[in-house]
Amino acid sequence: MAFKSDIEIAREARKLPIVEIGAKLGIGSEDLLPYGHDKAKVSQRFIDSVRDRPTGKLILVTAINPTPAGEGKTTTTVGLGDGLNAIGKRAAICIREASLGPNFGMKGGAAGGGYAQIVPMEDMNLHFTGDFHAITSAHSLLAAMIDNHIYWGNGLDIDIRRVVWRRVVDMNDRALRQVTASLGGVANGFPRETGFDITVASEVMAILCLATDLTDLERRLGNMIVAYRRDQSPVFCRDLQAQGAMTVLLKDAMQPNLVQTLENNPAFVHGGPFANIAHGCNSVIATTTALKTADYVVTEAGFGADLGAEKFMNIKCRKAGLKPDCVVLVATIRAMKMNGGIAKDALAEENVAAVKKGCSNLGRHIDNLHGFGVPVVVAINHFSGDGEAEVAAVQDYVTGRGADAIVSRHWADGSEGAIDLARRVAEIADSGASQFAQLYPDEMSLMDKIRTVATRIYHADDVLADKRIRDQLRQWQDQGYGHLPVCMAKTQYSFSTDPNLRGAPTGHSVPIREVRLSAGAGFVVVICGEIMTMPGLPRHPSAEKIRLNEAGEVEGLF
Amino acid sequence: MAFKSDIEIAREARKLPIVEIGAKLGIGSEDLLPYGHDKAKVSQRFIDSVRDRPTGKLILVTAINPTPAGEGKTTTTVGLGDGLNAIGKRAAICIREASLGPNFGMKGGAAGGGYAQIVPMEDMNLHFTGDFHAITSAHSLLAAMIDNHIYWGNGLDIDIRRVVWRRVVDMNDRALRQVTASLGGVANGFPRETGFDITVASEVMAILCLATDLTDLERRLGNMIVAYRRDQSPVFCRDLQAQGAMTVLLKDAMQPNLVQTLENNPAFVHGGPFANIAHGCNSVIATTTALKTADYVVTEAGFGADLGAEKFMNIKCRKAGLKPDCVVLVATIRAMKMNGGIAKDALAEENVAAVKKGCSNLGRHIDNLHGFGVPVVVAINHFSGDGEAEVAAVQDYVTGRGADAIVSRHWADGSEGAIDLARRVAEIADSGASQFAQLYPDEMSLMDKIRTVATRIYHADDVLADKRIRDQLRQWQDQGYGHLPVCMAKTQYSFSTDPNLRGAPTGHSVPIREVRLSAGAGFVVVICGEIMTMPGLPRHPSAEKIRLNEAGEVEGLF
Repeated sequence: MAFKSDIEIAREARKLPIVEIGAKLGIGSEDLLPYGHDKAKVSQRFIDSVRDRPTGKLILVTAINPTPAGEGKTTTTVGLGDGLNAIGKRAAICIREASLGPNFGMKGGAAGGGYAQIVPMEDMNLHFTGDFHAITSAHSLLAAMIDNHIYWGNGLDIDIRRVVWRRVVDMNDRALRQVTASLGGVANGFPRETGFDITVASEVMAILCLATDLTDLERRLGNMIVAYRRDQSPVFCRDLQAQGAMTVLLKDAMQPNLVQTLENNPAFVHGGPFANIAHGCNSVIATTTALKTADYVVTEAGFGADLGAEKFMNIKCRKAGLKPDCVVLVATIRAMKMNGGIAKDALAEENVAAVKKGCSNLGRHIDNLHGFGVPVVVAINHFSGDGEAEVAAVQDYVTGRGADAIVSRHWADGSEGAIDLARRVAEIADSGASQFAQLYPDEMSLMDKIRTVATRIYHADDVLADKRIRDQLRQWQDQGYGHLPVCMAKTQYSFSTDPNLRGAPTGHSVPIREVRLSAGAGFVVVICGEIMTMPGLPRHPSAEKIRLNEAGEVEGLF
Repeated sequence: MAFKSDIEIAREARKLPIVEIGAKLGIGSEDLLPYGHDKAKVSQRFIDSVRDRPTGKLILVTAINPTPAGEGKTTTTVGLGDGLNAIGKRAAICIREASLGPNFGMKGGAAGGGYAQIVPMEDMNLHFTGDFHAITSAHSLLAAMIDNHIYWGNGLDIDIRRVVWRRVVDMNDRALRQVTASLGGVANGFPRETGFDITVASEVMAILCLATDLTDLERRLGNMIVAYRRDQSPVFCRDLQAQGAMTVLLKDAMQPNLVQTLENNPAFVHGGPFANIAHGCNSVIATTTALKTADYVVTEAGFGADLGAEKFMNIKCRKAGLKPDCVVLVATIRAMKMNGGIAKDALAEENVAAVKKGCSNLGRHIDNLHGFGVPVVVAINHFSGDGEAEVAAVQDYVTGRGADAIVSRHWADGSEGAIDLARRVAEIADSGASQFAQLYPDEMSLMDKIRTVATRIYHADDVLADKRIRDQLRQWQDQGYGHLPVCMAKTQYSFSTDPNLRGAPTGHSVPIREVRLSAGAGFVVVICGEIMTMPGLPRHPSAEKIRLNEAGEVEGLF
């Protein structure tokens, strides 16, 4: 039997008009700003009108450390959402938007996969509703205003060697990583070094995803640090009076986007900050709107639970006052085997011993999540070759850790395959068992916050930070930024900072290369390793094959 | 009496749902892709379905050479469209989209003014339906693919000193005019000089506005020259296989946008190429779609008639097989006085002698337009201080040139003020009097085409071009580009290349600084003077005042 590709399945979707999807959540057509017939933004008026309603149950989907075998986090998020609807619960899904640029390098990502997908897939991988373009515009305006300020006399005394606001473009363009700008003489300004990041790495993106409303957005934008003076005092976005115009550029982008699953259930797809230098979650405004309109909200966080879930809890939940009622930790038998030391081309063979060995990674994530006081359900995202004994081995292991592991077949069967998972998740969420607590209080010093994450989540022995880093953290504390959470940027492939250390490594330490203050987003970025904020294209970018075919369909993007 | 501002009038508009506007043109709701409730794109299916219908009458609105007193070309376009509808004709308007970046420098432009405007005004001055963002993305993808090709071995032997494809951003950012890119060592590529233009200056924009459909778009994109080799042979976009992916990025942007006037008449707002290095008209696809759905289509061209109308005739009409049935030449009494030597602060005083003296500019434009075989109506765009004797002087003058001059009060009175103009224009368009003919045949040499425009339109004695320029033109002819029309880039303020020469100068010559081949758009750009393709921001950019007020309205943009 030949499997259908994700795009083939997506194209067969029988989409409902988006107004009917809105109606499922009680959002009237007058409060839906349509973008075509299958996408809409939710009006601010509606969001304001539901502020005092009771809040639904919040379910976070996270995963073990990624392996080339794949986990299917988004697929499980979608499948669980459909599963909850199938058992009669009013559930909505919240995921991130896709970045445009990377689709032209490697083949683009679907939103989910198999029979657990969100549509319209092409749009979501292209311009969608223009949110990322608006972020690029707002970011670019501020950049232009900084150099324009310097050009016209530099009244703010900006040290042009210390402009920290770079430029962005939503394209994989390595030639722009490092440039010298303002060349060409008197008319073009003062030459200086700068560079471009990809749009999702913009602090504007992180802010859009954390802001509670447009007023909060404008305030946070104003608080961004764009440069320093010779005396090292910061120059803020508000000093350039750019935050008002940036907010105008972002006013539509702030409204959550509503789309649907293959099974016509509501999905909010909104925002997409990097999961390393930012917190990697969809927007607070989408999540809170979903929680006011649905009884269950299924959302996900970037990378594995050591990065994604930790930031979801310590940054997003802290800032937005959210409390997860249940966490779903996604694993696959194949990924367990890879964690158990099996090579990618030998994953098809049954190997219970390798599965058992690989469970250490899963187990540590369960323990970490329990440390937040939240109940955990392991979802075994089913692949056709999974052996019964292998599945049983994982289930036994997870039971021993005080959680359940449930096989889910949403990829092949849609909601029907996710009913067991949905039932268990709903039961736990309804039970009120969650006793969510932050890992650290606001008052803890920045260095101690870093140490807390490193020791309690990564299970490292130690944090290595030289005097320059420690002094910088202390300076920010003196300037009033000590209450901020930390945003860890490290490899997603290991609990440690070494991507090759699979399983549940111990005896390692966490070296800090650099710290950055995202004063508008409201966190201190702690960089532990090489972090790339502008990807390049491969030798043969997928763009070479992407085209419209005779039927007007996009080919080569997926 | 206090006049209302354009934005106040626009905010009081009683807009109809866009599906009702579409219905006026026989476009069903299933063929309208909505962007909110007041904007929509027209489906390709609909455009294909009307291809064999009879074509409506095409009316071009152009103007005398601009002066600081203003002419009101767009306002007259809108007023005439509303006027035609008011006298029972089915008329549609076609204008260009606004560029985002410049709105943050100086206050943004309305689409029309007074009671002759197109709405929604805020959206049209912000992201609108995302067309320009799509153009920026497509342009940026090609730029990234060029440097990526060089990075991975440069199999096409591109001379990195001769990459002519620059980058674009829709922002006024002088710091990006000239940059050195690919710095930072081996991982980032081969350092080279380049720079950014504003998005509307992209050849992709010109192509989008000239392409007849997506197939034609892809072909033209492939034909763009992006670089040269050491032997000076061109490297095309298609050599990099970028045109397919660029077309995918542009597939929605190619569909015309439908909005409405204050009086709920249909307006297509689509495309916006520069009027100097490009042809400065709205898209061919919008104009032809309008001509298949309305009996009268009123459109405009950039700058004065010497640039805008000439390019409309010689580039847009030639490429798209269009024939204007009537040309409306807009003038104001105030601009006549300025052309007659009166300073801006003395325009309020009646001065018939100055008006008469200033008519020379108007007269030459009438003669030029008659040279294309098209009937001309002069629209005197009425200002409250205009003296009766002044108006009569213009009317007498125009009658002597074989045309009519009709006072139009659309700014103050909407369609009611434009009824006389509308009646006369409809009469002429219906009469079949137009005997449209191109100014030069395809077969004429490039140098002779330039000479023809310079002598017959600018009334210059001569064209000055050094050997380098003449050799370049000859080389392009040898390469098969000799059949292309020329796209003149010179000052808009004078028939000559000296912006201070008002009226109808003679005895001047046209020096050519540079020629550029836009092989995808299909014209040779002839640069006669300083042409700025990346504007800067002023000392106090309007962005500093732009914000959302408590009512959620945009302040400071207008």
